[in-house]
Amino acid sequence: MILILKSNATDDQIDHVLERVEALGLQHHLSRGTYRTIVGIIGDEEKLREEPLRAIPGVAKVVPVLPPFKLASRDAHPEPSVVDVSGVKIGGGNLGMIAGPCSVEDRDRMFRIAESVSKSGANLMRGGAFKPRTSPYAFQGLGEAGLQLLREVGDEFSMPVVTEVTDPRLVELVSQYADMLQVGARNMQNFALLTEVGKSNRPVLLKRGMSATINDLLMCAEYILSQGNANVVLCERGIKSFDSATRNLFDVAAVPAIHAISHLPIIVDPSHATGRPDLIPSCALAGLAAGADGVHVEVHDCPEVAKSDGPQALLPDQYDELARQMKSLAKLLGKTISPLPERKA
Amino acid sequence: MILILKSNATDDQIDHVLERVEALGLQHHLSRGTYRTIVGIIGDEEKLREEPLRAIPGVAKVVPVLPPFKLASRDAHPEPSVVDVSGVKIGGGNLGMIAGPCSVEDRDRMFRIAESVSKSGANLMRGGAFKPRTSPYAFQGLGEAGLQLLREVGDEFSMPVVTEVTDPRLVELVSQYADMLQVGARNMQNFALLTEVGKSNRPVLLKRGMSATINDLLMCAEYILSQGNANVVLCERGIKSFDSATRNLFDVAAVPAIHAISHLPIIVDPSHATGRPDLIPSCALAGLAAGADGVHVEVHDCPEVAKSDGPQALLPDQYDELARQMKSLAKLLGKTISPLPERKA
Amino acid sequence: MILILKSNATDDQIDHVLERVEALGLQHHLSRGTYRTIVGIIGDEEKLREEPLRAIPGVAKVVPVLPPFKLASRDAHPEPSVVDVSGVKIGGGNLGMIAGPCSVEDRDRMFRIAESVSKSGANLMRGGAFKPRTSPYAFQGLGEAGLQLLREVGDEFSMPVVTEVTDPRLVELVSQYADMLQVGARNMQNFALLTEVGKSNRPVLLKRGMSATINDLLMCAEYILSQGNANVVLCERGIKSFDSATRNLFDVAAVPAIHAISHLPIIVDPSHATGRPDLIPSCALAGLAAGADGVHVEVHDCPEVAKSDGPQALLPDQYDELARQMKSLAKLLGKTISPLPERKA
Amino acid sequence: MILILKSNATDDQIDHVLERVEALGLQHHLSRGTYRTIVGIIGDEEKLREEPLRAIPGVAKVVPVLPPFKLASRDAHPEPSVVDVSGVKIGGGNLGMIAGPCSVEDRDRMFRIAESVSKSGANLMRGGAFKPRTSPYAFQGLGEAGLQLLREVGDEFSMPVVTEVTDPRLVELVSQYADMLQVGARNMQNFALLTEVGKSNRPVLLKRGMSATINDLLMCAEYILSQGNANVVLCERGIKSFDSATRNLFDVAAVPAIHAISHLPIIVDPSHATGRPDLIPSCALAGLAAGADGVHVEVHDCPEVAKSDGPQALLPDQYDELARQMKSLAKLLGKTISPLPERKA
Repeated sequence: MILILKSNATDDQIDHVLERVEALGLQHHLSRGTYRTIVGIIGDEEKLREEPLRAIPGVAKVVPVLPPFKLASRDAHPEPSVVDVSGVKIGGGNLGMIAGPCSVEDRDRMFRIAESVSKSGANLMRGGAFKPRTSPYAFQGLGEAGLQLLREVGDEFSMPVVTEVTDPRLVELVSQYADMLQVGARNMQNFALLTEVGKSNRPVLLKRGMSATINDLLMCAEYILSQGNANVVLCERGIKSFDSATRNLFDVAAVPAIHAISHLPIIVDPSHATGRPDLIPSCALAGLAAGADGVHVEVHDCPEVAKSDGPQALLPDQYDELARQMKSLAKLLGKTISPLPERKA
Repeated sequence: MILILKSNATDDQIDHVLERVEALGLQHHLSRGTYRTIVGIIGDEEKLREEPLRAIPGVAKVVPVLPPFKLASRDAHPEPSVVDVSGVKIGGGNLGMIAGPCSVEDRDRMFRIAESVSKSGANLMRGGAFKPRTSPYAFQGLGEAGLQLLREVGDEFSMPVVTEVTDPRLVELVSQYADMLQVGARNMQNFALLTEVGKSNRPVLLKRGMSATINDLLMCAEYILSQGNANVVLCERGIKSFDSATRNLFDVAAVPAIHAISHLPIIVDPSHATGRPDLIPSCALAGLAAGADGVHVEVHDCPEVAKSDGPQALLPDQYDELARQMKSLAKLLGKTISPLPERKA
Repeated sequence: MILILKSNATDDQIDHVLERVEALGLQHHLSRGTYRTIVGIIGDEEKLREEPLRAIPGVAKVVPVLPPFKLASRDAHPEPSVVDVSGVKIGGGNLGMIAGPCSVEDRDRMFRIAESVSKSGANLMRGGAFKPRTSPYAFQGLGEAGLQLLREVGDEFSMPVVTEVTDPRLVELVSQYADMLQVGARNMQNFALLTEVGKSNRPVLLKRGMSATINDLLMCAEYILSQGNANVVLCERGIKSFDSATRNLFDVAAVPAIHAISHLPIIVDPSHATGRPDLIPSCALAGLAAGADGVHVEVHDCPEVAKSDGPQALLPDQYDELARQMKSLAKLLGKTISPLPERKA
Repeated sequence: MILILKSNATDDQIDHVLERVEALGLQHHLSRGTYRTIVGIIGDEEKLREEPLRAIPGVAKVVPVLPPFKLASRDAHPEPSVVDVSGVKIGGGNLGMIAGPCSVEDRDRMFRIAESVSKSGANLMRGGAFKPRTSPYAFQGLGEAGLQLLREVGDEFSMPVVTEVTDPRLVELVSQYADMLQVGARNMQNFALLTEVGKSNRPVLLKRGMSATINDLLMCAEYILSQGNANVVLCERGIKSFDSATRNLFDVAAVPAIHAISHLPIIVDPSHATGRPDLIPSCALAGLAAGADGVHVEVHDCPEVAKSDGPQALLPDQYDELARQMKSLAKLLGKTISPLPERKA
């Protein structure tokens, strides 16, 4: 931690700063420059991070030298993590290909979509049973009945299933049915929820909040990791921006930027990032080319009657064509699409 | 609702669009222009809002003509709402002046701060007992002990108290102690929490999320209102932007923009909006001049030891000076600072 | 300047960093912490600012300790600057009240508007003759004929006039007619233009670019100041954001944030910041309450036929009502609206 | 164009709206809905675009149905344009690979870099002679001497050269030396400059402004096209965002979004988009995978002494490795890297 003092900081103020550092059991290193005095603090930055050093009179600016997360950082874990979702691997060269409708709707539709996307090469089936909708009047999901349907479909096609959990009270219930728990963008900083999924034994798909920095996202992963759950997969799904040409702004550079500082796998979700089916294939390929550990795409066989997010879904045939392109690109990049686990007898 | 069709929409596609509209029990109005065909839909827009009309083949764009919220809108309730927080009025010309530390810390400090800010003119005391912290390693609040302390201080100085609730499981507990429940920016779209505070009988202070549009904020208010709780006060506390000169971007225009479309009171929080004590007074005054129904300011008597957000707190003396200026401005604007309720015998 | 080295920086890399610093004639101060090594550089930061220090192997981060502008900074000039525009003062407690249509249109309209706003209390008349339009097919302004008209009106009502210059080749021409040159938001970083207005002897109204940080804006002022023209007035006119409720995001906190680090006057432009006549009055008052040195408002007597930006203009009567409120607020704040200069005989 | 009227629009207001439409020689189509009245306007939308329809009393909202650009749109020109830069093709399956230092510096360095990048496969050499620097005290480029050097290098290695022009007065001079004129991000809306390059006979590389929407960018291309210069190549180089992890936010989705509505080629510039050499390769590949018509990368053989933007340059060896990967990906995608033109005898 470095403290840059104000140009008019008095000697008394400087002494007071040094005393505060000593009281925390840390060493300091004073450097009087031509225009500003600087205090370097030596020792465990963790002790300092939550101290309100900027509030000490005479301090102009506080500059941390380490990232604020530990368990999520590459320093703590230099090798890329590989998260195993009931037999499907994500990370370290293994690609998780998640596909399925936004919401679990009726049984026949779920079977049709699962059959199609599994043939195309998807290795994880998605579908929402508890939907976080921006309108209280919109379809809120089928609830437990949706979870049961999703489980049934997953078992039928031997695809592990991922679904969103929106409430800490539901983590236990959702864990009974799902292979992987999704924490959505709107709940990224719902710390009560993060703590509960951190206590569960299910892998977690943590989506980046719409105004979250990369550091914010990694701090939320840290919440989960710090509860003992090491199986976290991050997901870039677009952030807010000023251009309404796309629903959100797909931050593809977040993929290598996260790989540079964290060992956690990161996948991309071009469906939510763009909100436009015509852009999904290009952005899915861009994500893979940037090094993503997987791609999440919403697929529906009749978008115009979908109960949520229909306008951003690919048709099964469109997904099949995209999957073909993704496989070619994966091969060029030396990545493996993890095969479906053996069907349970 | 207006549908703008693609330039290459076929007659079959147009027919299909019209059939879909009729199937919903609504009338349509076709207008073939020189370059584009447009379909006006006549009838209850609510029926349409959640339909994935943009996914119908041939549709280029869907233009809603009504705002997506009803109970929160001025159309539904032309007069400004006045929310009564245990005797302190907010809205309709009455100003809520919220002050206090970020976190409830020790007993003596709480009494000292409450005594000072109540003398200065604050009419609502704040203090966090359950803190949503970006780091899992940071101080998370005193929990129920903090609620008890806050209640005690409120009773002593006859100030209603407001505190944050971060977990749907805690709404009942927090409601036992607090006069007003705060939903923080990070939980603005935590719909499970919104539903629970909507079922409680406490007024709610709903803070705008860091990347929430005004419409997003009003839709979250709608969640609470739709559960039967009409006592919602909104709070502008800064949104994300590209300039790190301030912690967030204080969107002062949101105040008149919200007044134009909603009857709900809206206050401003220059502490979180700017994160800089030196800018808080100017921005507090700006908020009032723009028509805000109150001002929320964090006050601490020793920011350099505060357990959270110390660097953005005003000292009690600074708050006193600001309160003096706010009173003068309120008088010029014809607004009333609601007096403290009578002390209970 | 502080250099934070990478955790794996080698001794050779550290030596190379120190050699580079010495080669620039500066001293260094090495501090080896538990996790990172830090190099403080002592001496004239200006020598370093343009050196690509971050490109030196082993360097993780470069932290400047001083702001990048000099002439524009409060350190260089502790008292607020007062800019004199042909007798009307802006800054240091004096308010510049700029009003007029977006574009100079016909002669009668200009006279009617000028008569009205000068009676209301405006002390500077605006009107564009060279318009930077986003469409090449839109009205581009009357050119020199517009300048002549504006000058005539200014002389008639004894109001100094301000108009935009968009091209370095036109600075001389525009200076012959205008009392103050406006550099628009889209040209804020048009350095060729900044250099030319910096060489002219006219005061400059420099509008903040739509994606400019406060530091960016002050660096552009520095361009003008560094050419010898000290008479720069800044203008906050809204920045880009994700919410389309307003045309831009009015950053009212920029007013005190700029006053904290610069001596230059800063006015606000709620017309461009909001793009909505119904929000202009609230935001104008908010700007003054935040400490602005003036307010810029577009006024047109028949917005529905205006040749540019009609939808964001106030009517003369609306401006008159706003001016009344601004005068009351100015009085409360202890500010003076600079009177019109004596009419030339 | 569609006008949505206010809920309280009077019959007189509606009549006035219809009269205004008729006065413009256009037809209208009135649709009275349950809650709102809507006026569809039939005929040439161009006539209306610049009319201040939103300023007519009773009008709530104006919804255009056509994009605001014509010459740049796919409607006007369904096939992708191929821009020929002195023999190197960009667009329609041909990739422009631009490489070189930020600034033209000394002669030996330019020759070394050009030799290296041309061997790696770059087909256009870049280098700035007139630099738009955010500080007036920074290196501003070598001027005409830099242009001469760049020309000499281009001739030696038979690479067409591209360089930035920042001032309308310099377009003629720069055109004498350069094969392609670059308009930088800060000058994207410098309409005087756009008009001048539109009159020149050189292809133009138009970089997206830091806060420009895709529509804004295409309107600036329209300025150039409307002057008669059809050879415009667009460049996505990152936009402003709230996360400082990267210098700008690389909007890779802009590539397919622009291809969907415009025939103009669009290349990506991961150097400026990310500002981080470690992220450039991933983002370059992502851009190609998304369909970009080329990649612009800054290359310098000693970044730590570069006169500008050193910290974001790749070393020649790093560029060589990236070029190898780009060639493999181009092959997979069925794209051609346009070969260098025959050396002039």
